Amino acid sequence: MEELRKKILSEGKICANNIVKVDSFLNHQLDVGFMKKIGKEIASRFKGEKIDKILTIESSGIAIACYVAEEFNCRVVFAKKGKSLNQSKDCFEANVYSYTRGGEYTIRVSKEFLHKGENVLIVDDFLANGAAINGLMNMVNEAGAHLVGCSVVIEKGFQPGGDNLRAKGIKLESLAILDVIDEANQTITFKDEK
Amino acid sequence: MEELRKKILSEGKICANNIVKVDSFLNHQLDVGFMKKIGKEIASRFKGEKIDKILTIESSGIAIACYVAEEFNCRVVFAKKGKSLNQSKDCFEANVYSYTRGGEYTIRVSKEFLHKGENVLIVDDFLANGAAINGLMNMVNEAGAHLVGCSVVIEKGFQPGGDNLRAKGIKLESLAILDVIDEANQTITFKDEK
Repeated sequence: MEELRKKILSEGKICANNIVKVDSFLNHQLDVGFMKKIGKEIASRFKGEKIDKILTIESSGIAIACYVAEEFNCRVVFAKKGKSLNQSKDCFEANVYSYTRGGEYTIRVSKEFLHKGENVLIVDDFLANGAAINGLMNMVNEAGAHLVGCSVVIEKGFQPGGDNLRAKGIKLESLAILDVIDEANQTITFKDEK
Repeated sequence: MEELRKKILSEGKICANNIVKVDSFLNHQLDVGFMKKIGKEIASRFKGEKIDKILTIESSGIAIACYVAEEFNCRVVFAKKGKSLNQSKDCFEANVYSYTRGGEYTIRVSKEFLHKGENVLIVDDFLANGAAINGLMNMVNEAGAHLVGCSVVIEKGFQPGGDNLRAKGIKLESLAILDVIDEANQTITFKDEK
């Protein structure tokens, strides 16, 4: 997605440890008009598919998921991190290791909101090692739902998450794939999206 | 908001400790079409005001904030809970006690995304004791921004957060105000919104 690449180049901040911060539009401040375009772009890549539910993970996936769901006229479910008094006891659970948070955490989706036979599209902001998406996929399997595919805004192409999904035959649509993040020279290069 | 009251009555689950779970449409599964209506309703209550930014807190405020922001054609900023490697060091911070999480946590907004002179509308899903909204208001003050007002989808009218804000002269728009949650009889009564 050309406009996304431009936005990453103009607004992204290259930090140590192969991190590009895109918090001016994607995961702290939200450029709502642009998020809407992202939603439309993701939806266009699954055009013709039957999608009953968009599954994502709090927090940065939520806005993206909403704008994809609008296109399919379906609901969003976001997996929750951590525990809350309000949370249903009857949940699908997965343990996820987060590099940026530096530890493992449990994600949960209430069994009320993920059903056998539902056609599920998983979306998220970033894909690196794929821990979060694998956790979500396990929940889809456990529910007996059907995974239509996965879509992320930014894939870190130098980490194995994306290729692992492709190797499993899962349809993955990444709107931008980072190839090299060069902190010293402050440059980013992209892989072809396909 | 009549449609919201109906939705709370038909989908809300009354639990112990004055909790009504509305996770079928508001904070776990998201009914995107309805969230859009909520965004429009909140925006209508601040019609004619100049709004430069919608400030909320992850996670359940994000979808609401996006749909309000669409109406004002402005950006969303969501305060983050907890720490992340990606997070800017230069943040506004506030400590917030959460009843449903059973403890205090720190929320942060990068100083890049909240500016002096900006007209800020704070939105969230629930208002009970007002801890989260007070934390957000402190950040707005610290930034030298202007608080236009606050809006929540559901106010727990039997807890002091809402009245405390009104007593300070802050414009607060609650789309539904719960008066009594009767677990034994499984009934909810509402206060008048004004």
